[in-house]
Amino acid sequence: WKRDPFDPTMADGKFWGRGCGDTKGNLIMQLLAVQAWQRVEGRPPINLKFVVEGEEEVGSPHFASFVHANKEILKADGATIEGGDHLHEGTPKIELGCKGILYVEMVSRTASVDQHSSYAAIAPNPGWRLIHFLTTLRDANGRIKIPGWYEDARRPTARELRYLRASAFSADALKGFWGVKHFIGGENNFELLRRLIYSPTCTICGFVSGYIEEGTKTVNPAVAKAKIDFRLVPNMKKEKQLAKLRDHLKSKGFEDIELRPAPENLEAAAISLAARVVKAAIKGSVDAYGREPEVWPWSAGASAHGFFNEVVGVPSISGPGVSYDGSNYHAPNENIRLTDFIGGSKHMAAMFARM
Amino acid sequence: WKRDPFDPTMADGKFWGRGCGDTKGNLIMQLLAVQAWQRVEGRPPINLKFVVEGEEEVGSPHFASFVHANKEILKADGATIEGGDHLHEGTPKIELGCKGILYVEMVSRTASVDQHSSYAAIAPNPGWRLIHFLTTLRDANGRIKIPGWYEDARRPTARELRYLRASAFSADALKGFWGVKHFIGGENNFELLRRLIYSPTCTICGFVSGYIEEGTKTVNPAVAKAKIDFRLVPNMKKEKQLAKLRDHLKSKGFEDIELRPAPENLEAAAISLAARVVKAAIKGSVDAYGREPEVWPWSAGASAHGFFNEVVGVPSISGPGVSYDGSNYHAPNENIRLTDFIGGSKHMAAMFARM
Repeated sequence: WKRDPFDPTMADGKFWGRGCGDTKGNLIMQLLAVQAWQRVEGRPPINLKFVVEGEEEVGSPHFASFVHANKEILKADGATIEGGDHLHEGTPKIELGCKGILYVEMVSRTASVDQHSSYAAIAPNPGWRLIHFLTTLRDANGRIKIPGWYEDARRPTARELRYLRASAFSADALKGFWGVKHFIGGENNFELLRRLIYSPTCTICGFVSGYIEEGTKTVNPAVAKAKIDFRLVPNMKKEKQLAKLRDHLKSKGFEDIELRPAPENLEAAAISLAARVVKAAIKGSVDAYGREPEVWPWSAGASAHGFFNEVVGVPSISGPGVSYDGSNYHAPNENIRLTDFIGGSKHMAAMFARM
Repeated sequence: WKRDPFDPTMADGKFWGRGCGDTKGNLIMQLLAVQAWQRVEGRPPINLKFVVEGEEEVGSPHFASFVHANKEILKADGATIEGGDHLHEGTPKIELGCKGILYVEMVSRTASVDQHSSYAAIAPNPGWRLIHFLTTLRDANGRIKIPGWYEDARRPTARELRYLRASAFSADALKGFWGVKHFIGGENNFELLRRLIYSPTCTICGFVSGYIEEGTKTVNPAVAKAKIDFRLVPNMKKEKQLAKLRDHLKSKGFEDIELRPAPENLEAAAISLAARVVKAAIKGSVDAYGREPEVWPWSAGASAHGFFNEVVGVPSISGPGVSYDGSNYHAPNENIRLTDFIGGSKHMAAMFARM
């Protein structure tokens, strides 16, 4: 962090602080849209319901039961959920759903105590053990090797791909933000975007074993842990994919490795381009930004769409919101651009009129 | 630790504390052997020189220059170096040398900042990258796959193996100490001991990437690091093996991974069973313990033998010292048995007479 993450500041046309993009800024932006409408036009033209849930970053442990217990209150003609953003050059983006997430901690324990590493010629090593299992999960190109993993994954439609071909998505901009030299899957923007959206992932979010401080320690550790994030695309269901992972572990002979799925509740879900709330969001973009938005069939990140689309039956989208693709969610120097904040608020007000 | 590691205590016939086995206890034991000889017999029958070096655990950064600058002072008919121990049932062990160590930190950096893991479909992941490199180094059975790695490794002699066949080495005892179910390389004690002594190793002493605390964080990290300990057997030289590792990294296309060899200075080295100091140590064992010792051609751990054997030209061994194979060097609950401490001290005094 270049600034104190918990002492938010405005500088360089941006607002800096932990959670400003993901997702406190979106809450304020919506309230300001209502306030602006009230000041200029009076009463908003549609009924509005706000659902404020503050536990998304810890897997929304209470949201599922809340939604199931309050379906009637939550019914609506359409919903917007935080999660969209703007592209680097300012194009607003709407998303018609989200990926889901299956987050699994994997633990190899090969002894009850660490040993001196001089014994490693005969003593098992949990890091090696876990690594050998991990390499059965995914190849170097990101393809997941668990049998049947892609079976249920929703495939692209021709109309979805037309939108993506027109996208201003810029891999070079992302590379610049992150200091990345090469992406997986080529250099072509459309190919990378298609991959970003339609590819399930298997990511090492964390790995720890043994001695990790500066310098050397000659230890053969007793334990190794990995935190693996599987992103699922719509139609892939968390429990079913977890069962496939467990079968794979067993069939590969790694039953000594413990799988600890995190209590995440976010399933993948997406609605059709034909839905009324989608049309309102597209028209709202022309009203607010003077141009058509990017339209993505779903987001690369997880969100609460499944609860609205599938549990309550309210078609939901994510509008452009307040952030952009350099907002550094979950990373140092999180920030939003003030122009995006204003644009997102105008878009929200425009949707009031277009629904 | 069941006790404060820095508040040493005696309990259950053992002495508990950090460094009591490796290796403060050995220093005290030798001084007590001299004191005992002086009290009972007067002046020791041979000239004695003590070399006390306190930086072995950080790779002895100053010892090489000390030895090279003081060869004349260090000349002797034989030397003993800490590092031996007793087997679980009390058999004293002498070792005629040691393995060497090449400790290398390996770093994969795929970005300048961490990213949200939803981008992992296209963003490279340093954990995966490092894991894919690591699996080119060693197979699941511990065999090192770097071309030519074993080329220089000293092979067993028939006489060495005869000693090892007679060894009381017990894999089950080690399994009990460490809570290990299966060793690599079978269940037969002799086969495991041969492997322990003659096999070079490639061990993951540490691995860290991304989020390693409790719970979940959906991050695609920028960096992954592994600390790899290669144990070398006599005749394998550190710099030559490192060059083979570098060639391998290059030929496998992993030049983006940085290799940081630690400034360790301990080469593998071993003397012959025919040396005078070996004979004195074997006879000294009969004097002190009433039985022949185990004789290992070298230790599984690293030590300073190379400096004495090869730089100064003093044949050196490691006597049984004060510890045993459950002493938990470099691990919690380090301890020595008082009977081993007394036995080691008697053996040292017996060697004064037998040299």
